[in-house]
Amino acid sequence: MATSPATEPSRPPIPGIQNVIAVGSGKGGVGKTTVAVNLAIALSRQGNRVGLLDADVYGPNVPLMMGVRAQPQAIGERIQPIEKHGLRVMSMGFLNPGDKPLVWRGPMLHSVIQQFLRGVDWGELDYLVIDLPPGTGDVQITLIQTAPLTGAVVVTTPSDVSLEDARKAINMFEQVRVPIVGVVENMSFLVCPHCNERIDVFSHGGGKRTAESMNVPFLGELPLHPEIRIGGDSGNPIALGGVNSLLAETFSFLATLVAQRATELRARKGPTVVIED
Amino acid sequence: MATSPATEPSRPPIPGIQNVIAVGSGKGGVGKTTVAVNLAIALSRQGNRVGLLDADVYGPNVPLMMGVRAQPQAIGERIQPIEKHGLRVMSMGFLNPGDKPLVWRGPMLHSVIQQFLRGVDWGELDYLVIDLPPGTGDVQITLIQTAPLTGAVVVTTPSDVSLEDARKAINMFEQVRVPIVGVVENMSFLVCPHCNERIDVFSHGGGKRTAESMNVPFLGELPLHPEIRIGGDSGNPIALGGVNSLLAETFSFLATLVAQRATELRARKGPTVVIED
Repeated sequence: MATSPATEPSRPPIPGIQNVIAVGSGKGGVGKTTVAVNLAIALSRQGNRVGLLDADVYGPNVPLMMGVRAQPQAIGERIQPIEKHGLRVMSMGFLNPGDKPLVWRGPMLHSVIQQFLRGVDWGELDYLVIDLPPGTGDVQITLIQTAPLTGAVVVTTPSDVSLEDARKAINMFEQVRVPIVGVVENMSFLVCPHCNERIDVFSHGGGKRTAESMNVPFLGELPLHPEIRIGGDSGNPIALGGVNSLLAETFSFLATLVAQRATELRARKGPTVVIED
Repeated sequence: MATSPATEPSRPPIPGIQNVIAVGSGKGGVGKTTVAVNLAIALSRQGNRVGLLDADVYGPNVPLMMGVRAQPQAIGERIQPIEKHGLRVMSMGFLNPGDKPLVWRGPMLHSVIQQFLRGVDWGELDYLVIDLPPGTGDVQITLIQTAPLTGAVVVTTPSDVSLEDARKAINMFEQVRVPIVGVVENMSFLVCPHCNERIDVFSHGGGKRTAESMNVPFLGELPLHPEIRIGGDSGNPIALGGVNSLLAETFSFLATLVAQRATELRARKGPTVVIED
């Protein structure tokens, strides 16, 4: 498909950041934040410099999952990200740590996202992982049009309702010309901790089928495992490898695939030329 | 707390509709639509006249879960709801049945919701159940300020991240003076179909603790059961009672509690006086 420069949204690169990977989902509660956090940690454990931006304005769960409740400081006009588990982290949740809902209207949101992308002292990063809000509304589109994304990971469960919304998300990214890094099927199966039998709680296999039918890469299946949820609830994500190294390996494998695909997408795009006006 | 008429949003009642029950959640994917659909069916099976309005603009999953893909007709200026499983149903999904995301901006959304609430030929209803979009953004607030809600059911899973967002949702409803019907803990536990042992996939008990600490009623625990998901994916919700009558009973019990609480809330509010100007 030919792309007209006139309709291409303006997404200037962020100096010092090599790859910007968004993690999105059509439906909430499919494990988008779990994937974003563990992917970021796995990339970091593979020797990359990684930032994690929690842009889920409605339910910023990254502080809880990363176990960090700090107030970011500014040096001059630059906001300093919080360092935790080897990542540089910034979250909407740092600005509103209580239980009160923050109601973001469009223009305010746009300026906060710009601030988080370009006003934060990310330094040199190989990867900035952005946890998007779930869904395909105007907030999401504003956000992905603002960020110079290398590509997007779409998380789904194998249930039909989740897949229905995942297809909408893939279409949304394609509409605004953000390449799909790939589809991840989360909560793909559960192994009973008592009898070791496999239980397909949310069905199984629809993520792969959806990716194939929409002609985008499939990045794999992640199990539904209580240790993954406990890792998130306790601020010690499973990808750190402390509790269950097999689960950490799963995320490490995902990180390898994402890194390969990011390299591919950057090569396809060619060098970025910034024209100052 | 004294309420000043000046700050009270204008929510005129909908003629012919006795109770309007919103089903909301702080986080997506916690089973909000599953609860809304099965609650509506259970209320209907108890002899009530029930409407179901799918107001989840970003991921309208009601058509899939109810197994209905019809195009609503208009008689004169009145939109006719679709009849299915004993309910009168209207959904954003009927207007946009494909996989393309619909991007709703605030004012457009407001007018569509008004249309759905007041331009649909609901007829006489004991209950109108509204499936809200998940979260606590301005879309949600616009929506609940527009609808004359008897009260709101808040759905959560027992995981800490879901509870964190549920507290935000409860606060949002209280901010706009919508009474909480109660909190439902969904995906509360899983019984292994192979060995019948219980697995607390998403932890357990946090819904009740959260309800108690926020001084709102707790409506009970719903299991994580593959048959509930299969019912939704196949368009035959479990509350219809075909496959597993024990699960249908669970929703029937929930419906009884919701009905009791709605009666309580309406009594507390006193008779509604509509002054025509």
